[in-house]
Amino acid sequence: MEMENGSSPAKSWGFRANPELIMSSDNTVRGVLYMIRSKLNQLDTRPIIPLGHGDPSAFPCFRTTQVAEDAIVESLRSAKFNGYSPTDGILPARRAVAEYLSKDLPYELSPDDVFLTLGCVQAIQTIITVLTNPKANILLPRPGFPHYEAFAKACHLEVRHFDLLPDKDWEVDLDSVNTLADENTVAMVIINPGNPCGNVFTYQHLQKVAETAKKLGILVISDEVYDHLAFGKNPFVPMGTFGSITPVITLGSISKRWIVPGWRLGWLVINDPNGILKQHGIIDCITAYLNISADAPTFIQGAIPDILAKTKDDFFLKIVNIIKDCANICYEGIQDVPGIICPTRPEGSMFVMVKLDLSIFVDIKDDVDFCFKLAREESVIILPGMSVGLNNWLRVTFAIEPSALEEGIKRLKAFCERHSKKP
Amino acid sequence: MEMENGSSPAKSWGFRANPELIMSSDNTVRGVLYMIRSKLNQLDTRPIIPLGHGDPSAFPCFRTTQVAEDAIVESLRSAKFNGYSPTDGILPARRAVAEYLSKDLPYELSPDDVFLTLGCVQAIQTIITVLTNPKANILLPRPGFPHYEAFAKACHLEVRHFDLLPDKDWEVDLDSVNTLADENTVAMVIINPGNPCGNVFTYQHLQKVAETAKKLGILVISDEVYDHLAFGKNPFVPMGTFGSITPVITLGSISKRWIVPGWRLGWLVINDPNGILKQHGIIDCITAYLNISADAPTFIQGAIPDILAKTKDDFFLKIVNIIKDCANICYEGIQDVPGIICPTRPEGSMFVMVKLDLSIFVDIKDDVDFCFKLAREESVIILPGMSVGLNNWLRVTFAIEPSALEEGIKRLKAFCERHSKKP
Repeated sequence: MEMENGSSPAKSWGFRANPELIMSSDNTVRGVLYMIRSKLNQLDTRPIIPLGHGDPSAFPCFRTTQVAEDAIVESLRSAKFNGYSPTDGILPARRAVAEYLSKDLPYELSPDDVFLTLGCVQAIQTIITVLTNPKANILLPRPGFPHYEAFAKACHLEVRHFDLLPDKDWEVDLDSVNTLADENTVAMVIINPGNPCGNVFTYQHLQKVAETAKKLGILVISDEVYDHLAFGKNPFVPMGTFGSITPVITLGSISKRWIVPGWRLGWLVINDPNGILKQHGIIDCITAYLNISADAPTFIQGAIPDILAKTKDDFFLKIVNIIKDCANICYEGIQDVPGIICPTRPEGSMFVMVKLDLSIFVDIKDDVDFCFKLAREESVIILPGMSVGLNNWLRVTFAIEPSALEEGIKRLKAFCERHSKKP
Repeated sequence: MEMENGSSPAKSWGFRANPELIMSSDNTVRGVLYMIRSKLNQLDTRPIIPLGHGDPSAFPCFRTTQVAEDAIVESLRSAKFNGYSPTDGILPARRAVAEYLSKDLPYELSPDDVFLTLGCVQAIQTIITVLTNPKANILLPRPGFPHYEAFAKACHLEVRHFDLLPDKDWEVDLDSVNTLADENTVAMVIINPGNPCGNVFTYQHLQKVAETAKKLGILVISDEVYDHLAFGKNPFVPMGTFGSITPVITLGSISKRWIVPGWRLGWLVINDPNGILKQHGIIDCITAYLNISADAPTFIQGAIPDILAKTKDDFFLKIVNIIKDCANICYEGIQDVPGIICPTRPEGSMFVMVKLDLSIFVDIKDDVDFCFKLAREESVIILPGMSVGLNNWLRVTFAIEPSALEEGIKRLKAFCERHSKKP
């Protein structure tokens, strides 16, 4: 520590860091990926293969549509959207999101059902904070997305985990939901299409989720940030379809479908035609929280009507087809990699969960050890399953440029072969 | 409530709204202004005069510089900034902010001292959350900016108020700071140029603030969101100037100087050449909090180097001159309004605090009653002092199109005359 500039010494400093905060954020995807990146070998001249996070925007084949860029430019140049946004978002943007989502629903959403947020992250933060109460608990999927755990910990909201079943296409273990829930349970979270599992829930399964939630008297929070990124046997069905069975809050954004996670435009949407959430004060509480939160930039909101209305289907189709090809390259490539088992072919989102068979390796202790060594030796970044709730699994992102993905799988194979016990 | 779609009845719903959240957000500027706007008379065909909040961006004379718009467009069109941002912000933007702020400091900031945030609001939320600890307390100015109180309440951080002294150019009452602080005090907040007071602290006074803070062993949080909007006898001096006396955290943004509050680009900056905050774990804790928070959109960050480097002085000068003219129109106009006393001519920011002399009115109960009736009868929006901590004062925003301001003052005068006791 340097000297304090010659002036008289201070009394001991009175501030210290919030200890809970450090703990809450330890285990975010971002935090874990930073740790893994710190293991990279700077002397390796090969390009880094990023299979760790769901952001393919850096690859030219995933560039967003010009329609979306034009909409932002036009909104900005109009100079109509330089000022503060209202708490819930500007009306034309909320109306546009309501219309966009209503296309896939059996009823019409109103703009008042839509709250614009800073990506899906702020939507998660908002609903977790709103539902926090002394003694309350929330049911989260395992494996899942660790931001839910992080915010719940920061709010002191008790978390209970139900399992997703790898042998049943990663469906929700509804028996465990029934067992875990009690009179203090406020909600359950599903993520569909699945992060980290790459599955897509069927209509029938979603209906069962709704009926279970209704029986338990709880809300379903449906994280649909990967909405429409479905390319297997099951079409994407929004959970809001079942909003008349049990109240549903849908979280979404333009981040994934438009490949612009850095634009930070998301939404929290009330799918509750029976008005139960309003009656219970949840809607007012969402507004109260957003009142003290930062808003999505107004000119990005101003572009939303054009982005949602004018993007052509061929853009969506192109993106989904590339991701589907990547999913297949990944799934088929991994079949040849010793020590890695992939229970199901991914059918949605940008990820697949694969299981490590540690028994075949000489010197791999666990999933974190695997990912650290893989980063150091092969410059390939993969997320250890530990950080999404499943030890000794891996979450592999396949949504990257196909040739880079092929290279990544090749290096993964070389790594696993090198570390395998010799026959 | 509508019927639940014919299915069997649910057990009672288990969720309820977070009661603390509703309380925390009750008293934000935004919350209070919504209430006041709800009193507007829809039959009044005259334009609404918004003297309630610091956002003149809707007026053509306050349009931002084309340099800033061009920088955003170029950043967006490059397609380099569509992806997720790193936690602290992208390096070129952090470097640009460090260089921009260092011009006014006796030492050089490093990019690592800069955390990019979603406007100043997220910077406030971050530092309040980071400093929260059991038994800790924070010293806030009265009058002040209610977001500090709202976040502190949400975090259960105890708030103690020191006064700003209207008869001494709204300087900090350092005696009350000394009296209020104890071994659990972590920080004091100043806002300079002043919101809501429109004052600008002298170099000498800021130095005394730093010395007081050092003696007490506390951090100074300096909210400089109105930096450089100073047009009276005192030039703007950043609190960071005294960072070697006591650690200073500066909060700022491009919102006010560039008149783009809707762009949501702010910063939290460490002014601590002695490294005391790092040593106490505060820096790691800021990163931990930002790890679980939404980031500023990446392409807006990508524009920051050009916005900060290329904006011409004549733009800043033009804006400051308009605001100065407005301050004078406001101050002089109010001299003729019965029942309103303005202790000092505003010299910075976009606001002035004026005192109500309720004794001269027939039927005005307090400041809130005044603002409700003014909105209904004259379509003029003013913020009641209650919401910034001073009952029976008003915070008047003067940074609007001058002709609209003149009209607003005229209506204010008519209102006060109409409600005055007849001589």
